[in-house]
Amino acid sequence: MTTNKWLIKNGAFAVNREEKAVVHGYMIIEDSRITYIGEELPAGEEATEAVDGTGLLFLPGLINTHGHAAMSLLRGYGDDMVLQEWLQTKMWPMEAKFTASDVYWGTSLSVLEMLKGGTTAFLDMYDHMDEVAKVVEQSGIRASLMRGAIGLCSEEEQRAKLAEAVAFAKNWHGQAGGRITAMMSPHAPYTCPPAFIEQFVQAAHDLDLPLHTHMSETAAEVEQNVREYGLRPVAHLDKLGFFSRPSLVAHAVHLNDEEIALLAERKVAVSHNPGSNLKLASGVARVTELLKAGVTVSLGTDSPASNNNLDMFEEMRLAALIHKGVTGDPTAVPAGEALRMATEYGAKSIALKEVGSLSAGSKADFIALNIDQPHFLPKTDLVSHAVYSASAKDVLHVWVDGRQVVRNGECLTMDEERIKHEAQAAFTGLLSR
Amino acid sequence: MTTNKWLIKNGAFAVNREEKAVVHGYMIIEDSRITYIGEELPAGEEATEAVDGTGLLFLPGLINTHGHAAMSLLRGYGDDMVLQEWLQTKMWPMEAKFTASDVYWGTSLSVLEMLKGGTTAFLDMYDHMDEVAKVVEQSGIRASLMRGAIGLCSEEEQRAKLAEAVAFAKNWHGQAGGRITAMMSPHAPYTCPPAFIEQFVQAAHDLDLPLHTHMSETAAEVEQNVREYGLRPVAHLDKLGFFSRPSLVAHAVHLNDEEIALLAERKVAVSHNPGSNLKLASGVARVTELLKAGVTVSLGTDSPASNNNLDMFEEMRLAALIHKGVTGDPTAVPAGEALRMATEYGAKSIALKEVGSLSAGSKADFIALNIDQPHFLPKTDLVSHAVYSASAKDVLHVWVDGRQVVRNGECLTMDEERIKHEAQAAFTGLLSR
Repeated sequence: MTTNKWLIKNGAFAVNREEKAVVHGYMIIEDSRITYIGEELPAGEEATEAVDGTGLLFLPGLINTHGHAAMSLLRGYGDDMVLQEWLQTKMWPMEAKFTASDVYWGTSLSVLEMLKGGTTAFLDMYDHMDEVAKVVEQSGIRASLMRGAIGLCSEEEQRAKLAEAVAFAKNWHGQAGGRITAMMSPHAPYTCPPAFIEQFVQAAHDLDLPLHTHMSETAAEVEQNVREYGLRPVAHLDKLGFFSRPSLVAHAVHLNDEEIALLAERKVAVSHNPGSNLKLASGVARVTELLKAGVTVSLGTDSPASNNNLDMFEEMRLAALIHKGVTGDPTAVPAGEALRMATEYGAKSIALKEVGSLSAGSKADFIALNIDQPHFLPKTDLVSHAVYSASAKDVLHVWVDGRQVVRNGECLTMDEERIKHEAQAAFTGLLSR
Repeated sequence: MTTNKWLIKNGAFAVNREEKAVVHGYMIIEDSRITYIGEELPAGEEATEAVDGTGLLFLPGLINTHGHAAMSLLRGYGDDMVLQEWLQTKMWPMEAKFTASDVYWGTSLSVLEMLKGGTTAFLDMYDHMDEVAKVVEQSGIRASLMRGAIGLCSEEEQRAKLAEAVAFAKNWHGQAGGRITAMMSPHAPYTCPPAFIEQFVQAAHDLDLPLHTHMSETAAEVEQNVREYGLRPVAHLDKLGFFSRPSLVAHAVHLNDEEIALLAERKVAVSHNPGSNLKLASGVARVTELLKAGVTVSLGTDSPASNNNLDMFEEMRLAALIHKGVTGDPTAVPAGEALRMATEYGAKSIALKEVGSLSAGSKADFIALNIDQPHFLPKTDLVSHAVYSASAKDVLHVWVDGRQVVRNGECLTMDEERIKHEAQAAFTGLLSR
């Protein structure tokens, strides 16, 4: 007997396939999986209790492939500043004061915002990761988690950080009913000595886990890499064996043609963070060329301190808009491709095989948008509407792993009032310490 | 005796001044004007019935300075296409079929979306403008309206269009309790012969009205202007006397240094349409240089067929983000300046002297955002939150000219269900004709 079964009728389902973008009809979920999507109600299902999907557009849950959720505590604490001044006078002094409790409440605030906005899986690279894992376990969201390690410290401290990253991965990979997976993550080539990166690569081999890092976010760090190691970051990481594992690099703004070709050859995925890259004035990644070369490009918000929200609809729209404007090609990153970047390619980027699309057999991570609103009319192209007109606030319902976690805009698994109170208190505490 | 009085207490009011961004306290509205904003409740006001502003951020109503509202009927009907193919196979054939009724319902759909999203005034350049004026009159929004005239036709047709534009301005300027103002608007230098533009300039002088036109949206139209008239568009319009009137040009994407200097000298305002310019791959306007030169730069959505929504928060955020990313300067277009572009500079662009800021004496066009939500925490910089984190859907209440037109997200002046139904029916009708 099935303990968890949903029949959704009269819905519009964004299957986002070339031959058909949207199926109007029925979707069935049993336990944690989608078992059927189609125009007809399968025989024998007439008696199943149904959810009315009228006026709703169902999408795969959105997947945020790069971020530091706890930094929501610093949202709006420093904006419109030169990068080094922002880091040195605003971010780093505050982050140095973050306790486990701060990470717990900051992450809670972010996960609440993400779930309510239709994000069903996210990648998080930070410190105090046990706290992040606890929030994931409690909230019902899916996540790829990792201790991000900066190696500009003594060898002893390096060893401790690596051991922490390994212990975290061993403890949490596969936990929360499989909703938590782990990656290994040296912070960036410019913050990690080569030997330290190689230790992470070895650990990833030993644990059979993928790798993640920041790469080529700014022109300055590319120049520094050439100055210090005689190589640009892609060749440098390749030399260190980084790409011998399934790997995902965040940002990848400053790439030359050879680097794009090598990323494609090594099957390295890229997390494109358009909002953060624009806000920090890092530049505009060569996304159309990356996609053309066959690189898997997904979308990330980066931290809420450099974005400043976790609205993945906005990242989809930015990805669909800015590459048109910058390349002069209005066909660049069409709506369907932007949606795939936020879903299917997102899943691939963080090595999740069973999510990222609405299809029978997939894990039931999906969301429902309220399209009975002026900005979704007329009913022309619903995928276009989802990308060019929707926002996080249009999300009405969210399911992860077959479990409804948001209903009518309210999160069922988290205590919103408490989280808002504790997050504000945590920020006040950071200011006063 | 005052017939209309509002006292708002415990609110946060974005006065957006350099010395102070936000005032926490009280705002009083009497009839159509703000009469007080301050931290203290003025003596004698204790007995006035009050609106509780707790958890709300009050902003001046947003002002959308370029658009074609009725084109909401073509939202999502053609996306991700090359400009000429989009115009020739999608937009123009459908627009040729637009009736007065289509314009009425398309405009109603857009005005409904704008009001609910916090836009209290908009510019509209289209055809069947009596219908647009009716929607403005009925809905309670404020608008600057004009018959946009394309001059690629016989002299007889040109005369008829000019006469229509003049008659519309005479009939409607100052109507709807002063909420409607008019401008004169030849469509663009590349669609209007010089003599036709001069006739509009003369009419604007005769009627004492400002001028509006599209200018330098694409590189191709600039080249065409040079080919046909030996001048780039700014010098061409200047030669035709266009800038002898208060004037607003939309887009202004492709400008050289001399043109920026001339626009500043002639006090020409620019309506920057970042979403549309990106989506149509027109390019990125030189907004930081325009602002630096002292040009009044405001924000517009352009039509919902090339945006595809009317969310002015998104235009603010795009303006604040893309110029950082493209110029490499993270201090470009800071949050406060983006908010001024959408409010104060918007009012100036469409020649409205009494709106665009929260200040005693101003017309009471203002909105309230629900900031008791995860994406507005912690309470660091509320202007930053409004620009970098908010969306149209965060707007809870809207007042125009002292009258509340949106309450708890519902429009009080328009029949939402009827408009949604009629707009969808209008689109279906266009498809079938």
